[in-house]
Amino acid sequence: MPWLDYLSNKIGSRLSGSEGADKGVQWCLEESKKFLTMLFLQEVMVPHWVRGEKEKAYYVVNGKKTEVNICALGGSIATPLSGLMANVVEVKNFDELKSLGTEKIKGKIVFYNRPMDVTRIHCFEAYGGAVNQRGGGALHAAKYGAVGVVVRSMTQEIDKYPHTGAMRYDDSIPRIPACAISTLEANELSALLKKDANVQFYFKQSCNTLPDKLSHNVIADLKGSEFPDEIILVGGHLDSWDLAQGAHDDGAGIVQSMEVLSLFRELNIKPKRTIRFVGFMNEENGVRGANKYAEVAKEKKDKHIAAIESDAGGFVPRGFFMEGDETKRNKIKSWAKLFEPYNLHSWDHVGSGTDVHPLGEQGAFLLGLSPDPQRYFDVHHSALDVFEMINRRELQLGAASMAALVYMIDKYGL
Amino acid sequence: MPWLDYLSNKIGSRLSGSEGADKGVQWCLEESKKFLTMLFLQEVMVPHWVRGEKEKAYYVVNGKKTEVNICALGGSIATPLSGLMANVVEVKNFDELKSLGTEKIKGKIVFYNRPMDVTRIHCFEAYGGAVNQRGGGALHAAKYGAVGVVVRSMTQEIDKYPHTGAMRYDDSIPRIPACAISTLEANELSALLKKDANVQFYFKQSCNTLPDKLSHNVIADLKGSEFPDEIILVGGHLDSWDLAQGAHDDGAGIVQSMEVLSLFRELNIKPKRTIRFVGFMNEENGVRGANKYAEVAKEKKDKHIAAIESDAGGFVPRGFFMEGDETKRNKIKSWAKLFEPYNLHSWDHVGSGTDVHPLGEQGAFLLGLSPDPQRYFDVHHSALDVFEMINRRELQLGAASMAALVYMIDKYGL
Repeated sequence: MPWLDYLSNKIGSRLSGSEGADKGVQWCLEESKKFLTMLFLQEVMVPHWVRGEKEKAYYVVNGKKTEVNICALGGSIATPLSGLMANVVEVKNFDELKSLGTEKIKGKIVFYNRPMDVTRIHCFEAYGGAVNQRGGGALHAAKYGAVGVVVRSMTQEIDKYPHTGAMRYDDSIPRIPACAISTLEANELSALLKKDANVQFYFKQSCNTLPDKLSHNVIADLKGSEFPDEIILVGGHLDSWDLAQGAHDDGAGIVQSMEVLSLFRELNIKPKRTIRFVGFMNEENGVRGANKYAEVAKEKKDKHIAAIESDAGGFVPRGFFMEGDETKRNKIKSWAKLFEPYNLHSWDHVGSGTDVHPLGEQGAFLLGLSPDPQRYFDVHHSALDVFEMINRRELQLGAASMAALVYMIDKYGL
Repeated sequence: MPWLDYLSNKIGSRLSGSEGADKGVQWCLEESKKFLTMLFLQEVMVPHWVRGEKEKAYYVVNGKKTEVNICALGGSIATPLSGLMANVVEVKNFDELKSLGTEKIKGKIVFYNRPMDVTRIHCFEAYGGAVNQRGGGALHAAKYGAVGVVVRSMTQEIDKYPHTGAMRYDDSIPRIPACAISTLEANELSALLKKDANVQFYFKQSCNTLPDKLSHNVIADLKGSEFPDEIILVGGHLDSWDLAQGAHDDGAGIVQSMEVLSLFRELNIKPKRTIRFVGFMNEENGVRGANKYAEVAKEKKDKHIAAIESDAGGFVPRGFFMEGDETKRNKIKSWAKLFEPYNLHSWDHVGSGTDVHPLGEQGAFLLGLSPDPQRYFDVHHSALDVFEMINRRELQLGAASMAALVYMIDKYGL
């Protein structure tokens, strides 16, 4: 908890290429040195996108302006200096966009307003069902001549906080600016559009992509006594979006992963295999750190027997996502009874984490800590992702769960 | 969520005998009338304890006063008007108190400082392991001539919020005033006492027990079509401690229970058995509402086949506590698979709820909603038990879980 307090409150946001990201890397290295001896930084070039001045947006109905809360999506281009004003076309998905076609879209701002499905108890499924609007919304809309894109924020909550996140362009399609609007104001805008199709929307953002910058993954080993070449990786990502402190995403995963190694030291457990902590850089907007790590691991023929990521928030743990070999999966599931006292019960969801994913093709069995998902998207990528949203016991229980699982994998292999 | 918003923010605290409690009863009745026709109020006389002026406390070391945060325990007598000042003896339990005896205790303030065990993942076990200091601390200390009692607050968190809760006297033993001190300040006081046994503690509280007052349980039925005499009860308690809004304890349980019946109406499910909502009065300091309800049920020979309480906070549900007949328990457990999509997995913890408990001896199978317990004692009985601590999705999931279970019990019987 003091770690996360420092990382959140003293360092704060850590978007790739930012001063905060550099500080995060240094802090992680220095703290890990206090209980580990084998540490190093792995160089990686990362994208360097900056938000610039605070965005501005409003809609105009009958000459009356109403300001709304937006934020530029990560990777977006700026609007013209004076901003961008146009009529709005609301769509729910790419099919609807396509059916409207160039005739209805050209010169307009496309407003993607398909909500996350609140009836999904597994909130990541709801996220998965909505997030293509954010990632691909601009490039799809630009195909039909749209001049900008406004995307409903990726949250099930109805409030005034815009949620940022990565979006992408395609070199063959013109780049148009893209922003997220808060869900409350998305609802208001949608209601207005039903009454008056001539609503005009204005937004101004001055974000920019600067040249790539040198950054680092942090790697720290607790060497195995019997099979030092067999690596059990545990990690999270050091970078975070710039609107808040990245306390849940993914400060929590970083400190929980560091805690796994720290607990082994504190309890004087000498692992048979090498337990490796990796603090990945640039999960949010490029995955360059993870790709670099996997590339080097492949060259060096590192043998990762398992790779566990914590990147779903510091909430009370429910179990583990898993993907890969069925036999290994069943071996881990055979330990489920031992985890019942930790209140863990969820072993059947497929998944792991963005950063460990590239290690799958090198034979690593992939896992992800699976915390309770109900509150995650309330804060995810928004100004609400701050330390105050963390509960100490929930965070600790996640770290303890990972440590227990690493202990079992170390003891019995996979 | 609008219900709980109203109950928390518009009505607020609802301690038995208070104006808030009366308003809570009326509100519950009026809201339930909107979707139910068979409602009534059941009269019950309740204790009427009032806190009076805000408490004051400090300790004195070398003539220097340091103020600390306390609150009177529910049911405590006042200190003398000018307050109470004495030396402090710290103990961890009643055995230690006994071994010190009258010689060491007489004329002193006894400071109970056994923390809740933070290593217990099931936090109610940690509560159970510490709460006898609060409930019985004053009467045990008075046996040895103590003049007052200061009890470490019942929370695993270390902060400045005192947590109130019920305590009891024994007619054969002199009554002495009892208060709770925040955990942070309990730690500070304990550290000071190790350096200087002459620390003096002062506290002043003006609480008072007034004559019993008339209050009510709220009862509302959704009549069964086939077996109207078989009652499935679902409920929580309308009263709450006075330091905050009682949002988790037990506003959440009240609105979740109302929601069960509301969902049946909304989905037009016609139950075979009678689904009954009960909003119990006076769970916190007397259990008079529950005892009255059970007494009348016995007289009327009401047949409760199951009674489910939600009184462990509005957090994400994990499963159900159960107690009673093993066959019925196993029947319910045989449905566990159906509840997995709700993320429910916990069916083995024994328990139910204080208000439904008296129905057990009349043959009702007893259950309690079992939400995740990690955050409950952070807010429980303190100024932090406010609406802002509620998460909409978690609250709703609890209500839906109860509704699903009631549906199954109605459909298949017990």
